[in-house]
Amino acid sequence: MRSVISILDLSAEEINQLIATAKDIIAHPENYWDKCAHKKLATLFYEPSTRTRLSFEAAMLELGGSVLGFSEASSSSASKGESVADTSKILSCYADIIAMRHPQEGAPYVASRNATIPVINAGDGSHNHPTQTLADMLTISRELGRLENLTIGLCGDLKYGRTVHSLIEAMSRCGNIRFVLIAPKELKIPSFIRYNVLEKYHIPYTEVESLEEAMPQLDVLYMTRIQRERFDDPWEYERLKDTYILDTKKMELAKERMCVLHPLPRVNEISVQVDADPRAAYFRQALNGKYMRMALILKLLEEAKANPIREEIDTTDLEYDRVCTNPKCISRTEQELPQLFRCTDKAADIHRCIYCEQRA
Amino acid sequence: MRSVISILDLSAEEINQLIATAKDIIAHPENYWDKCAHKKLATLFYEPSTRTRLSFEAAMLELGGSVLGFSEASSSSASKGESVADTSKILSCYADIIAMRHPQEGAPYVASRNATIPVINAGDGSHNHPTQTLADMLTISRELGRLENLTIGLCGDLKYGRTVHSLIEAMSRCGNIRFVLIAPKELKIPSFIRYNVLEKYHIPYTEVESLEEAMPQLDVLYMTRIQRERFDDPWEYERLKDTYILDTKKMELAKERMCVLHPLPRVNEISVQVDADPRAAYFRQALNGKYMRMALILKLLEEAKANPIREEIDTTDLEYDRVCTNPKCISRTEQELPQLFRCTDKAADIHRCIYCEQRA
Amino acid sequence: MRSVISILDLSAEEINQLIATAKDIIAHPENYWDKCAHKKLATLFYEPSTRTRLSFEAAMLELGGSVLGFSEASSSSASKGESVADTSKILSCYADIIAMRHPQEGAPYVASRNATIPVINAGDGSHNHPTQTLADMLTISRELGRLENLTIGLCGDLKYGRTVHSLIEAMSRCGNIRFVLIAPKELKIPSFIRYNVLEKYHIPYTEVESLEEAMPQLDVLYMTRIQRERFDDPWEYERLKDTYILDTKKMELAKERMCVLHPLPRVNEISVQVDADPRAAYFRQALNGKYMRMALILKLLEEAKANPIREEIDTTDLEYDRVCTNPKCISRTEQELPQLFRCTDKAADIHRCIYCEQRA
Repeated sequence: MRSVISILDLSAEEINQLIATAKDIIAHPENYWDKCAHKKLATLFYEPSTRTRLSFEAAMLELGGSVLGFSEASSSSASKGESVADTSKILSCYADIIAMRHPQEGAPYVASRNATIPVINAGDGSHNHPTQTLADMLTISRELGRLENLTIGLCGDLKYGRTVHSLIEAMSRCGNIRFVLIAPKELKIPSFIRYNVLEKYHIPYTEVESLEEAMPQLDVLYMTRIQRERFDDPWEYERLKDTYILDTKKMELAKERMCVLHPLPRVNEISVQVDADPRAAYFRQALNGKYMRMALILKLLEEAKANPIREEIDTTDLEYDRVCTNPKCISRTEQELPQLFRCTDKAADIHRCIYCEQRA
Repeated sequence: MRSVISILDLSAEEINQLIATAKDIIAHPENYWDKCAHKKLATLFYEPSTRTRLSFEAAMLELGGSVLGFSEASSSSASKGESVADTSKILSCYADIIAMRHPQEGAPYVASRNATIPVINAGDGSHNHPTQTLADMLTISRELGRLENLTIGLCGDLKYGRTVHSLIEAMSRCGNIRFVLIAPKELKIPSFIRYNVLEKYHIPYTEVESLEEAMPQLDVLYMTRIQRERFDDPWEYERLKDTYILDTKKMELAKERMCVLHPLPRVNEISVQVDADPRAAYFRQALNGKYMRMALILKLLEEAKANPIREEIDTTDLEYDRVCTNPKCISRTEQELPQLFRCTDKAADIHRCIYCEQRA
Repeated sequence: MRSVISILDLSAEEINQLIATAKDIIAHPENYWDKCAHKKLATLFYEPSTRTRLSFEAAMLELGGSVLGFSEASSSSASKGESVADTSKILSCYADIIAMRHPQEGAPYVASRNATIPVINAGDGSHNHPTQTLADMLTISRELGRLENLTIGLCGDLKYGRTVHSLIEAMSRCGNIRFVLIAPKELKIPSFIRYNVLEKYHIPYTEVESLEEAMPQLDVLYMTRIQRERFDDPWEYERLKDTYILDTKKMELAKERMCVLHPLPRVNEISVQVDADPRAAYFRQALNGKYMRMALILKLLEEAKANPIREEIDTTDLEYDRVCTNPKCISRTEQELPQLFRCTDKAADIHRCIYCEQRA
């Protein structure tokens, strides 16, 4: 039995299989109507996220399963102080698979170490959101017919955007990918992506501040929202915000065959007028998210059936003598959870918290 | 493919067919157990309304379908600023039909212009609530055996009560209907109902302040709640409130064969002691609401199957140069939504917002 | 048709039958997959309780039924002032059985007197929680192989803990039971349990302040949480709290064959390290709760099918001239609900409110 907490929990080969399954579901939905009969998905959403939650629920229902859960922490036992570990153990009595959204980084990982059923991370803080990346990859594959030989522009908040980080990690394993990182200097890609992924695997990338400048070379444009709160200087926000709004005028600069993605919800970072452009793929991306979640639920339930024992983690090189300083890490609040670190780069002497992956 | 935003989206003939379907469901529920197998209803409730939401959910479940959605805005993407249009597009990926409740007038209409699946208005501000009217009409039909030749008393808040407005619109198309409008002067029927419906179609009506006076002539008494907040003068409220409370003593003045309706929830405008009176039909009305919602869901899904293309609106006579002043109109907040008006009465030069129908 | 508001609504014989049914479900779950096809459970939770709600929902889903409802009062018509009686009548139109959680004592009883479908009390204030007791009894039966000849330790808040009260009432009917009541003096067992159950039925019990002292003799240890708010003197709380925390050291004092129960959620009253002890039965208890709820739903639906008429209450000896002083009693807020008392002990001249059972 296995859980998916990070996109890297799935090999490139496994992602290709999930994409193939999703395409088969699209072609023959009726073949999957009873695949999860008598199975239950628990949607444990400690913060609201309608789109992601309903996508998981629709996925399970279209597989013939059913759904239970909660959509915000105030409706949950968490308001009575129950730990993520306990909730996961109890939910293992009520459901066959869990999709968990949590504002604290590492919470779904803690759940996966305590549940006796598979756990899917449906977003934890600004850490991971693997099923969004699966949706992104199916969309690129369906829109452009390939996952290799692509110039991918990532625009907006590249610092805190978990979907951007996961997409870089996943696409870096595909062949001949080049990234164009389009962001104001306040929101540039963080060092763990820069050094642990891009530099480490020799992925070519350029960094620019202007969306217009980047536009002509892109096969994929991945838009994200820039939040005012991210800026120290509000005038800097005012100066920049329009630069990162995609409108029909900027679309004129783009290739004829390319696609625009957005994890949604958007506020105003893509003009509504762009929606009519055939290259605007973000609503199809939402649909693709449902199909990839169906494929993932199927895969994890099949694995759990074949091998109901939880995969053990390798405890040999864990380090017990450090304390995580990330205020959003689950280890800050979870009852009796030991602080655990692991050396992720011996040459550079980098140690990371096993829950939130923040550097010690 | 068609949506139902106002009761007038359904012809009198179509309403009769829905009533016939509902009566067939009541007689043979088992014939409908699988009618919506593999279909999903999205209940998008931007404000709580337990009774209406659960009525829709029960309706879909009794048709063999399933349900997903949210029950208040704080659990939805709306709290992140997502537009109604975007939510409708995304939900079209997850469900087969939408029931939307929204505090802003015109929101379900905007949804219906963006969704690729049918939308049912489950109440928008004090604007429309068509499925309540369907429940009312089935109840009158079942209680009295007819929808013609009726004296209908409407009591309470006739100014803001959307269920009252919809019922007048719908019943005015039936034969030989007479209304008795029972309300304090602060809460009299608004002019758009008075002139656009009652006067226009020459429907006889009288206006009285006293429920006791009206009681003996009524075939139907439709009760609504009077809210303290509606009065400028709190003493006026205190003076009047008891006058509009229905109790067993007032019931003694009524015909032996008549029925009392109420959209529920009631607070204290009908004494609990009236519940035992066989003429008290308001709980049966709640049950009838479920059956009419079943009939409507069936009808709209069948139409969508036969013709999956969304009906286009007639754009020839739209007016683009006016601004809606209704603070509750969806056009006040929805991203990039154009202000649109239409002339509804050329003789009187009346122009109305196409979203909330408020006069320019 | 019958409802279950208190554990005493079920005879000892009926509880044994429910335990037998639950064990058969555990052995042959597939035999029950369609038992509640086309049936709907309404979960009416006026305050959040994730574990109980999801346990009921999982129970109904595993019987092939479906679920609708609300998970907190703000999403319900209660926020518009609808009475429990009215909500129960309306929900009877939408569902086949109700599970109700309510902060006010007696609310599920009021529901059961107005609904035309069975009502299960899922917890009302600090009054009753019968399905928790059913879970406790199945757990004792499965863990120890018997429900007789037991020394049962009850530890923590015995004054307000409704699960403790119900368990004493239920186990007192089994043969040769002895209780050890482990609590600080502020939180001792209330007089209605002491005199109406323990003394009345001559059940042997001892009262101690020390968990360590009690430990060696126990076959069952039932842990509950001690809340700071219950103490007049905060220093008294600080002095005592650790005494009532179960840890591995205290477990060393216990019998080799015994079991630890807890209604969950726990906060810190049981150390996480105890979880690995095979005698820690509290997570299996959560699973057992689901099976007992399945058995109870089945039983009540079968009874309702055989006899759809609501059992009438005996009104001959009701007393109309007293007023309930319990601020949490449903009779304090419910519209037009008559105050009703009944003499429960003629010798001692004790009269109790029929809703919350508080003494006049």
